[in-house]
Amino acid sequence: MLKILVASALAGFRDEFWSDTVERKLREYDFELEFFYREKLRLEDLPKDPRVGAVVTSWGSPRFTAAAFEKFPDLKFLGHCAGSAAGVASPDFFDHGGRIFSANSVMAAAVAEWSLLMTLLHSRNFFGSASVGRGQAMNWRERRFSMGNLRESVVGIWGFGDISRRLLSMLKPLNIGKILVASKHAAPAEIEAYGAQKAPFDELFEKADMVHCLVGVTPETWHGIGAKELAMLKDGAGVINGGRAGLIDEEALCRELAARRLHAYLDVFYEEPLPETSPLYDMPNVVMTPHNAGYPGRKDFLPFLLDEFNRALRGEACLGEITAERLRTMTVEQLGKKR
Amino acid sequence: MLKILVASALAGFRDEFWSDTVERKLREYDFELEFFYREKLRLEDLPKDPRVGAVVTSWGSPRFTAAAFEKFPDLKFLGHCAGSAAGVASPDFFDHGGRIFSANSVMAAAVAEWSLLMTLLHSRNFFGSASVGRGQAMNWRERRFSMGNLRESVVGIWGFGDISRRLLSMLKPLNIGKILVASKHAAPAEIEAYGAQKAPFDELFEKADMVHCLVGVTPETWHGIGAKELAMLKDGAGVINGGRAGLIDEEALCRELAARRLHAYLDVFYEEPLPETSPLYDMPNVVMTPHNAGYPGRKDFLPFLLDEFNRALRGEACLGEITAERLRTMTVEQLGKKR
Repeated sequence: MLKILVASALAGFRDEFWSDTVERKLREYDFELEFFYREKLRLEDLPKDPRVGAVVTSWGSPRFTAAAFEKFPDLKFLGHCAGSAAGVASPDFFDHGGRIFSANSVMAAAVAEWSLLMTLLHSRNFFGSASVGRGQAMNWRERRFSMGNLRESVVGIWGFGDISRRLLSMLKPLNIGKILVASKHAAPAEIEAYGAQKAPFDELFEKADMVHCLVGVTPETWHGIGAKELAMLKDGAGVINGGRAGLIDEEALCRELAARRLHAYLDVFYEEPLPETSPLYDMPNVVMTPHNAGYPGRKDFLPFLLDEFNRALRGEACLGEITAERLRTMTVEQLGKKR
Repeated sequence: MLKILVASALAGFRDEFWSDTVERKLREYDFELEFFYREKLRLEDLPKDPRVGAVVTSWGSPRFTAAAFEKFPDLKFLGHCAGSAAGVASPDFFDHGGRIFSANSVMAAAVAEWSLLMTLLHSRNFFGSASVGRGQAMNWRERRFSMGNLRESVVGIWGFGDISRRLLSMLKPLNIGKILVASKHAAPAEIEAYGAQKAPFDELFEKADMVHCLVGVTPETWHGIGAKELAMLKDGAGVINGGRAGLIDEEALCRELAARRLHAYLDVFYEEPLPETSPLYDMPNVVMTPHNAGYPGRKDFLPFLLDEFNRALRGEACLGEITAERLRTMTVEQLGKKR
């Protein structure tokens, strides 16, 4: 028996995360789940409850500090129904023996899926010949010569976290010509185990037919792709961003895109929703999705966290545990005002 | 030393199939390659040449019969730079010890890649929220709720040939909820080895969120998907055809699509190019590509066949050999006037 409190500032939490699978798992594991919703929820708004053994957080949830243990003396687990847990847990949460789990790897699978989709769209120059139900003709005449061949292509990936690893697994059966991964931390052998090669950051832009931006945003990676890197890319190359908007200098990217030299595939933007006045909407070389790359994984978040709680209670190995050290190095979601 | 004659009725053969890799392999294997091009090329147009040890054919090439051995007494191999070799080799080609190789498995990888792309587009309801450079807004409001989740989806595949197997390999890392394969010939265990389940044909339409049409066209499969099967599909399901147009009763499909109940993803059409008057162009629930699903593999055809010739000469196992029995059961490309 574990009592779980969902501490949510998200009005649609239930709609977004609930499923038959959640109900089944709650019964199976003999877990009890209670919702506490308040707009702009603060930690001090939550009522004391000695029965609470786990909390579930998501976007907008309060930050759980050591103070949480005054309200919930028996609190063991925090499960985060989203990506980075840095915003909902402070390092002193660990001081009282609390353990933190994140559904990040589940969302990572969905973002990797989006990145795979964009890899295929770019390689096939999809919008150069397809008809997508808006009255336009198919480009039958040039249908052949505008297409790339993944077996002869170079795919660059910046970052080697959960999303990159999942993407690499998904790219494996496509027999990509060469995959280059730029990472500060990963060892060459680790990257080679995924069928790719470690490469210096600059080499991605010199050699790749498309570059995926999947590293976390830190002061060091902020605007890592600027005018210099974009200028290095070959004509017709693709910039694919399923990560964070702040990884790319937006103004420099817009200039290259306006010149029609590059293609861009973007799920994240400095201002969201992207303003209607953005020139990006009218560019034939730009494909955009409304920051929903990770959405298809949402219904999997809560089942995953319930599984994690169950594994932790039984002393089994957990798949999404965040260590104190990891929490410190995680993406800081709010880096200044811009994302 | 092997002299290879390309017997082509395709003016752009060289542009389409040539690459640096071809030249490298010709040198490496000590092969010599000669082109013979004529529009509407017939077997009798080819000059006698006792040095020819292999012929390469493609779309529009003449059909090689036993008579070929009168012109080329030393002929050992026929390599087909396309899909089904049924149109370019007659069963009596085997009587003189000739062996036939097809690049079909290479094209299959490219068509499987297209099918993977369409799987992702459909599952994510991509065109329901994306902006693809034609001035339209993104659907930010409904960006979440219109998306499927492959982990909870049922994917149906009709056919278990080269394309289906490659597609199954590509789908594996996506952890699809359930994959059902309908096949007359394959054993359940063979299909299960690819992470899917054998299912009766009708079950595909009862249960799947999308159905791939990847079986060969034979009199038995012609119009296999008709009004009855389409009516069985759930609302919003997708029909994905990277195989042959003739597998689907086009009129029945158009009726369902006009009612906006289903989505369709089509690379093949009864009449190609698809006439400009087709109502399909204006349907928001239809995505079409100009029969180029298999194109990205083209540059790989000739290198693959050179590898096959080399393997055959060295007595090694070949990957794309067509047996006499296989030749008989292959897709008959021209089934009446319609494809």
